[in-house]
Amino acid sequence: MDVYIAVDIGGTQLRAAVFPAGEMKPSAVRKLATNGDGEEPLARLLRLLHSVIPQKDTVRGIALAAPGPANGRAGIIYRAPNIPGWINLPLAQIVEDEFKIRTLLGNDADMAALGEWKYGAARGHSDVIYITVSTGIGAGIITDNRLLEGASGLAGELGHTTIVEDGLICSCGHPGHVEAYASGTAISRFVEEEIAKGTPSALKGQKKITAKEVNQAAQAGDELAIRAFERAGLYLGRALGDFLHLINPSIVVIGGGVSHAGELLFKPLREAMSTRIIAPEYMSKLEIVPAALGDDAGLIGTLVLAQS
Amino acid sequence: MDVYIAVDIGGTQLRAAVFPAGEMKPSAVRKLATNGDGEEPLARLLRLLHSVIPQKDTVRGIALAAPGPANGRAGIIYRAPNIPGWINLPLAQIVEDEFKIRTLLGNDADMAALGEWKYGAARGHSDVIYITVSTGIGAGIITDNRLLEGASGLAGELGHTTIVEDGLICSCGHPGHVEAYASGTAISRFVEEEIAKGTPSALKGQKKITAKEVNQAAQAGDELAIRAFERAGLYLGRALGDFLHLINPSIVVIGGGVSHAGELLFKPLREAMSTRIIAPEYMSKLEIVPAALGDDAGLIGTLVLAQS
Repeated sequence: MDVYIAVDIGGTQLRAAVFPAGEMKPSAVRKLATNGDGEEPLARLLRLLHSVIPQKDTVRGIALAAPGPANGRAGIIYRAPNIPGWINLPLAQIVEDEFKIRTLLGNDADMAALGEWKYGAARGHSDVIYITVSTGIGAGIITDNRLLEGASGLAGELGHTTIVEDGLICSCGHPGHVEAYASGTAISRFVEEEIAKGTPSALKGQKKITAKEVNQAAQAGDELAIRAFERAGLYLGRALGDFLHLINPSIVVIGGGVSHAGELLFKPLREAMSTRIIAPEYMSKLEIVPAALGDDAGLIGTLVLAQS
Repeated sequence: MDVYIAVDIGGTQLRAAVFPAGEMKPSAVRKLATNGDGEEPLARLLRLLHSVIPQKDTVRGIALAAPGPANGRAGIIYRAPNIPGWINLPLAQIVEDEFKIRTLLGNDADMAALGEWKYGAARGHSDVIYITVSTGIGAGIITDNRLLEGASGLAGELGHTTIVEDGLICSCGHPGHVEAYASGTAISRFVEEEIAKGTPSALKGQKKITAKEVNQAAQAGDELAIRAFERAGLYLGRALGDFLHLINPSIVVIGGGVSHAGELLFKPLREAMSTRIIAPEYMSKLEIVPAALGDDAGLIGTLVLAQS
């Protein structure tokens, strides 16, 4: 049997899946903590791969999803959160040398974009913006049926577009990025600050307020919680509206935990987008939809890369 | 002999050039006013093409550069300034039906980008942002050696990115676009307004102040004129810095009349770009250079499309 192997490299966990050729359900999945037992993460990754590679089958390709910035064309991981030693690591070559099997890699948001494009919400579309809104904002762009990688593999970082000059500080340290206004972190921070200012909310006094709790409160009618998603949708929609002029996709797919808010997020987002466009053609046939593959998008997209 | 035909469609002039295969110098160029003699522009275009198509040669391809938004994949011109009847005109098919020769089209800024990529300042680069700054701001993007067209052919409109929320009104009617801050029109308007406010300048009292006059004054040391280019460079650099995160090019090519200001524009532009990037890799190998082909870029890029 021919198989493909897709590996999701996380800062805390490594996850390797074996996919029989032509199938989207893995025949085996193994997990291993990224760090542990005084063993280097790279040694643990290779050990995990040895443990899943079937003896009797032919592995036609391996692909790796990196948790941070990576250069897919060169097969290099620039850096990885929680894996301090991985600086400019030529990981694709290392794995290829170990197993003598063609190995590709890409960053996790790009892999999720590939997954949604090939098997998920964006099937049949040649030009796609995929954006995942959770703690931060990640994204991947497909143009003319190909992943937009860029010269160094660093394209598609939509979250770090300036949306408010001298605005709120982003996780990256720069002011005014859309991630600082529309991520899950930004939503919960907004609610906490409003409560501290005295704005009434059912969330007042709650110990832990993440975007999930804000969504639950909003669905129950809490005005502040609703306003928090409207605000996130407004800023995300403004940014996406500008991106339409650059990328001109036929579909925008929105994933990540924050997208579970549904119309609370999508309605203000669509409205804000429509105020930005310079010609109706940018939105007349544009679909704006939630992601379809959920947490599997990354692993399935990594399979797509392995198959490529 | 095999030849290609490239046609530049302007709002005032049609220009058709015959290129022998393998050559970049046309063997013949003919021009015709776009409007005249009560004859429709389309009839004039076909007549011009009939007059340049050589009887003895084999025409291997025709390509047309449209003066406004166009859908290259579909061969449609959405609209054309000064040619009111051209709405959603399937011009590639019309020309192909008339001459039985494969015909492609694209918008003029995209054609100039193709020209600079294949034969100009961006030769050898696979990922390119080309931006032309004159009356307005046009642009074309090459990713992985292909023109980024988008689902409807409308990608790459970098000039219409919001750089100042609720800012100056752009030619398109929207507030705060980079075109309203960094185009030639924006530069001359800024100088005129500053002079009206009493800011001293050698340009005071001059009847016609275009970006060209501002450049001449700046090169001669006029402080207001220098400041006008610094301001344009600042805003253009901010916008380009954000675009690096989306496109991750290895070269940015800047053409159009305003680029003739040289370091007066390029220095503040580079500085502003460097303040925006979230990782050094976006600029560590990035070239930022003036265009090489001048006014020929569009016609040469149209030839590139005809050859494709």
